[in-house]
Amino acid sequence: MNKLIDEIIKGNKRAVSRAITIIENSVDDAREIINKIYPNTGNALRIGITGPPGAGKSTLTNHLASLLSNDGSKTGILAVDPTSPFSGGALLGDRVRMNDIGMNQNILIRSMATRGSLGGLSTKAIDAADIVDAAGYKNIIFETVGVGQSELDILNASDIVIVILVPESGDSIQAMKAGLMEIADLFVLNKCDRPGADSAYNALKTILSLRYHDEKTWMIPVLKTIASSKQGLDELSVAINQFIEHQNKFGLFSKRRKNNFITRIKNIVEKDISHNLWENINLNTMVSNSENNSPFVIARSITSNLNKKDLHI
Amino acid sequence: MNKLIDEIIKGNKRAVSRAITIIENSVDDAREIINKIYPNTGNALRIGITGPPGAGKSTLTNHLASLLSNDGSKTGILAVDPTSPFSGGALLGDRVRMNDIGMNQNILIRSMATRGSLGGLSTKAIDAADIVDAAGYKNIIFETVGVGQSELDILNASDIVIVILVPESGDSIQAMKAGLMEIADLFVLNKCDRPGADSAYNALKTILSLRYHDEKTWMIPVLKTIASSKQGLDELSVAINQFIEHQNKFGLFSKRRKNNFITRIKNIVEKDISHNLWENINLNTMVSNSENNSPFVIARSITSNLNKKDLHI
Repeated sequence: MNKLIDEIIKGNKRAVSRAITIIENSVDDAREIINKIYPNTGNALRIGITGPPGAGKSTLTNHLASLLSNDGSKTGILAVDPTSPFSGGALLGDRVRMNDIGMNQNILIRSMATRGSLGGLSTKAIDAADIVDAAGYKNIIFETVGVGQSELDILNASDIVIVILVPESGDSIQAMKAGLMEIADLFVLNKCDRPGADSAYNALKTILSLRYHDEKTWMIPVLKTIASSKQGLDELSVAINQFIEHQNKFGLFSKRRKNNFITRIKNIVEKDISHNLWENINLNTMVSNSENNSPFVIARSITSNLNKKDLHI
Repeated sequence: MNKLIDEIIKGNKRAVSRAITIIENSVDDAREIINKIYPNTGNALRIGITGPPGAGKSTLTNHLASLLSNDGSKTGILAVDPTSPFSGGALLGDRVRMNDIGMNQNILIRSMATRGSLGGLSTKAIDAADIVDAAGYKNIIFETVGVGQSELDILNASDIVIVILVPESGDSIQAMKAGLMEIADLFVLNKCDRPGADSAYNALKTILSLRYHDEKTWMIPVLKTIASSKQGLDELSVAINQFIEHQNKFGLFSKRRKNNFITRIKNIVEKDISHNLWENINLNTMVSNSENNSPFVIARSITSNLNKKDLHI
């Protein structure tokens, strides 16, 4: 284990990969690794990218990673896929992506999928980012689909959140429904050579202009891109820097990091308590014996009889 | 309260609406209502409908509801929106929908959004379904966007899950990425007058044919629809019935209900334990005093010092 830790901190890409695999498959070993590398983390900028399926997230993420690594620094991509267990989609996804940027030694790509049962996907993705961070990567991109709870947990571990939309999804009601408005620090309107791009752009700008803002408020920009031909990527990179400068200017960068860290601790504690809770309780029998009882009545009968032994604490 | 319960059970639409508002705004009152109406629930078929933004879920849901109520029975629609707190999107959405089917007295439409802080959206939607169920509605449709954890919780409370895709989202890798494959009992390919419908249909069929199956396995169908002109809706209604018949034939309907009920109890217990956990713990100070400590080390120091008082049990 100590050898692996040393290799991670030296920046050995293979060691990073191995450590992420350990994180995916084991809770205890994952914690041992994170505890050991933790003092070496905190240097990477964590960029969350999300948007609906088909918005072009992978293409944009790949090109952004290339651009960020132009200065010789290293960029890690953690693509978080709530993938079907019978399709093997994450691996397939990786292979498709590799064609793009797999040859660039400064870029690490890793897909993470909902496979195992222990621990949540978001926890694992955040742990993986610590590994990549400790290995000296300057930027880490979390790429997630949509805005479910598990994805929100990941975006809540980011220093900046970029939401990608396409002209078709730009309709204001649909965008609001998708819950994308309140998590974005930057909007990207991708595939903006498609019909409807201007009206989607204007609709987004209008909705954003209605937000409350004061002098400290970051005015969320909308950037037009065509990721497939790299159009607008330079502007995106500039906007990321502007956002970080704004955050630092008002002390918001470190504040957000601290809040993210607190959220992470809360999630760990709550999952630890829940994890072993059901081992000694036979819910199946309990439910069969309580005909017509409300779930709240049954839940109450469980919580009122809990003891420290049940919680394994 | 007892008057409200009586009116719900009589099927008073206004009482149902009022009870759902109570559920949205209060945890304790919600539980009191559910406990009282619970013996009157269990008769409604719960249909979960999900799919990416822009797939035409609302239109299809509206027409399906009309169709299901053609026999004079009542249908409830619970549209679950992870809506922006600053946009008021859920209400706006309701108003848009009302134009369609708001005049049909047998149909109840209710949007539920992530507004309050107490309790999760999925819990509230499932509680709301109990109210609608107790009011004598024969079918209840949960309409959700995407497949996040909160949405999965709602779909896990359904007797059948319908996933709606459109030709553009039909690309196999994208569909797998969206995690839609393992939760669907029926696929609907909507807007199938659009280009690419046939290849999307064939791709879906191919992926589905690769699944393991034996004689008990429901062979997931792919239905083509054009919801805006009601094409394919009759076939969808037939397929829903076929699925329920299949489930009953193999004892899977009641088994799924029991599993869903157990999941619901687990969620209630876990949320109850987590809910008050942080009241007596000053994480902010704790984090400031533990420079460079891994979140797992801090979490461990919290769980190992927990007592029944902290858990409020």
